[in-house]
Amino acid sequence: MAAVSRVRALKPHAEIIALEKGPWTSYSACGIPYLVGGEVAKLDDLVARTPQQFRDKDRIDVRTRHEVTEIDLDRREVTVHGKEFGRTLKIGFDQLLIGTGGIPVRPPLPGIDLPSVHGVQTLADAEHLLRHATEGRAARVAVVGGGYIGIEIAEAFVRRGLRVSMIEGSDQVMRTLDADMGERVATAIRKAGIDLRLNTQVTGFEADGVVTSAGRIPADLVVLGIGVAPNTALAEAAGISLGVKKSIAVDRRQRTSADGVYAAGDCCESYHRVSGQRVHIALGTVANKQARVAGTNLGGGYATFGGVLGTAVSKLCSTEVGRTGLTVREAIDAGFEPVSQTITGTTTASYLPSARPIVVKMVAEKGSGRVLGAQIIGEEGAAKRIDIVATALWNEMDVESMSELDLGYAPPFSPLWDPVLIAARETAKLV
Amino acid sequence: MAAVSRVRALKPHAEIIALEKGPWTSYSACGIPYLVGGEVAKLDDLVARTPQQFRDKDRIDVRTRHEVTEIDLDRREVTVHGKEFGRTLKIGFDQLLIGTGGIPVRPPLPGIDLPSVHGVQTLADAEHLLRHATEGRAARVAVVGGGYIGIEIAEAFVRRGLRVSMIEGSDQVMRTLDADMGERVATAIRKAGIDLRLNTQVTGFEADGVVTSAGRIPADLVVLGIGVAPNTALAEAAGISLGVKKSIAVDRRQRTSADGVYAAGDCCESYHRVSGQRVHIALGTVANKQARVAGTNLGGGYATFGGVLGTAVSKLCSTEVGRTGLTVREAIDAGFEPVSQTITGTTTASYLPSARPIVVKMVAEKGSGRVLGAQIIGEEGAAKRIDIVATALWNEMDVESMSELDLGYAPPFSPLWDPVLIAARETAKLV
Repeated sequence: MAAVSRVRALKPHAEIIALEKGPWTSYSACGIPYLVGGEVAKLDDLVARTPQQFRDKDRIDVRTRHEVTEIDLDRREVTVHGKEFGRTLKIGFDQLLIGTGGIPVRPPLPGIDLPSVHGVQTLADAEHLLRHATEGRAARVAVVGGGYIGIEIAEAFVRRGLRVSMIEGSDQVMRTLDADMGERVATAIRKAGIDLRLNTQVTGFEADGVVTSAGRIPADLVVLGIGVAPNTALAEAAGISLGVKKSIAVDRRQRTSADGVYAAGDCCESYHRVSGQRVHIALGTVANKQARVAGTNLGGGYATFGGVLGTAVSKLCSTEVGRTGLTVREAIDAGFEPVSQTITGTTTASYLPSARPIVVKMVAEKGSGRVLGAQIIGEEGAAKRIDIVATALWNEMDVESMSELDLGYAPPFSPLWDPVLIAARETAKLV
Repeated sequence: MAAVSRVRALKPHAEIIALEKGPWTSYSACGIPYLVGGEVAKLDDLVARTPQQFRDKDRIDVRTRHEVTEIDLDRREVTVHGKEFGRTLKIGFDQLLIGTGGIPVRPPLPGIDLPSVHGVQTLADAEHLLRHATEGRAARVAVVGGGYIGIEIAEAFVRRGLRVSMIEGSDQVMRTLDADMGERVATAIRKAGIDLRLNTQVTGFEADGVVTSAGRIPADLVVLGIGVAPNTALAEAAGISLGVKKSIAVDRRQRTSADGVYAAGDCCESYHRVSGQRVHIALGTVANKQARVAGTNLGGGYATFGGVLGTAVSKLCSTEVGRTGLTVREAIDAGFEPVSQTITGTTTASYLPSARPIVVKMVAEKGSGRVLGAQIIGEEGAAKRIDIVATALWNEMDVESMSELDLGYAPPFSPLWDPVLIAARETAKLV
């Protein structure tokens, strides 16, 4: 919908049809844990714009409960199944945007289709989880996966007073961090009262529990947080080229291999500015930026997508986590020789009662000193400092210059030397 | 002291003497308002390192209560008056660092030397103001000047339950902002219960009030917050060249016009990276960075100071203010043709109860779109976002590229598009 709004701005007279399988458009999937946890009052608050608003304001022919079942590139038409009236129709197009998003990974294990096993993706999921959280239908929740989504939804159920287990197959939660930083997040998870089980393989689901390599874990509700795969069945069937992790391959203008066909969001790939590699990163910010680029190009303008850094922030109770660029492990995998340094500090002047702990791990390239990435864990005021590193990374700064940055200082906001600058300075000594 | 610590690290055997007029070394003057306001428990908490710690750890011969009265560049010696024993002695040097700092501006008005009229600079000032705040010696405080220091100290007295007036000679508080943003700060000042008097000239001081162009304002205590001038009498008398606003002229290595003589901190000038002009900015972050550069060069290493952007953050009750680079007014004065756009948003996803208002004004160069500066006013979580703009400015980004930055997003931290990115995007439309 971000793309078609852009097209409408550029082409006031174009006929624009938006086909959506479900009943909603433009909602914040990232907000679902806060709805389930009770911080967001009602489901409608997560809806940024309704289909009717798009119809009225942008004159976009939004058809909800309309599922596209086929894309025919030769005839330049899509086959659409209208669920409400049970009709199937064909709609022609000059240009097509594929924004089919991602689908939560559902491992083909016994019991995976039980009604107690859920994803955290659509507002329908949200409604279902919310009912479980509030109507006493579940007392014990098992969250499968220790990534961002798993952690955020686990906290939501803890807030509701439910007993929560988190089952992670590997030896580390939040695998977008290095192991040493992941360990700090594990500590925060346990401190939040969540029963964390590392190195535990799920082998099946039952109505009242999860079967694992370490025995049975009782659960009335299971939430899957093991990642999102690009939803590309339609594109693949149409013969459109796929790229990394079977996401739709796109160029810098979000064009697919098919003429006049664009893709944006969780269904397609991105370019990583630091590693130089194609990556699949399913994040709302990336999706929205790609959509604007696609929309501009669809509308006859010119725009390219600048790529991603893999920046992300997350929160678990009072613990904040931020990361950008490459971890040490990722840097090595991408062919760099990294150096790294971890510093501890405070978020404000240490003499103020508002001072909170912050740990910054900075990763740089040996020799050149080029910033490769950073990871931050701390309390209030810690995580968003990752934006400083993201902006430095975007500009290919080295740690030495980074340590000279003229950042804002006053005692309630930062120590005299911001922890991020200290991390850069200390890392520069190892280059 | 930051410089001599650096020299010690580089030259383990150098003889280093530090001469300090007062009794303290290395304290946070910026922390004084928080001591007066009661957030910092005791004066000692503001002392980062005592003279004895410098003697013990860095083997620096720190002599407090020793006032340098003359610098003789030909004989390469300084004349020092030891206050404790009433002695005057001469100390030779091979290299000299001048770090005489700034002195609060004290206008030559009738009554300026009354004991009720104070600056906010030294720990002696801090002790005095603290006594007034806590021992019932003053019920009414007049703060002269509506800049950062004036605002912070005014809030401190409000916290203590005192009645506070703020007298500002011009039509705007916080003149490092454009008038439209200054107006928002004025609203916050009034909302905090401070009696703000704009366009009011102070003509004299009396024991129980301030005489102004708009009548007499009762006050048991007067605090001067009308800026800091470089303390350069010694340097000037020695024949060292002065630069902008009579601050000590230095090159990029912090060298003065005199061979082997360096300067750092509030006594000397800086280079502004955006305007390209020499400026005098009295801020702790700048002073500390300059000191490290001076120390490295004094120690036989090589370092240059990267310059300043004029980044600053401040807080008044729940209102946060941030600024970096040039305002519209400053951009015009520096010869640019600026465009600017102001946007309003929220600090977190708008559907969360933690969402707070934020206003971002972005200034860019017409034609090139180069970022020239930004001003932010908002509530919790607003001001430190100025660091994103500061890092973009440092790298001479344009607003279009800036709007593409991959910043951290999760509902408790930011809307999907960070307000800073929206401001950049909207400003790009005017370029």
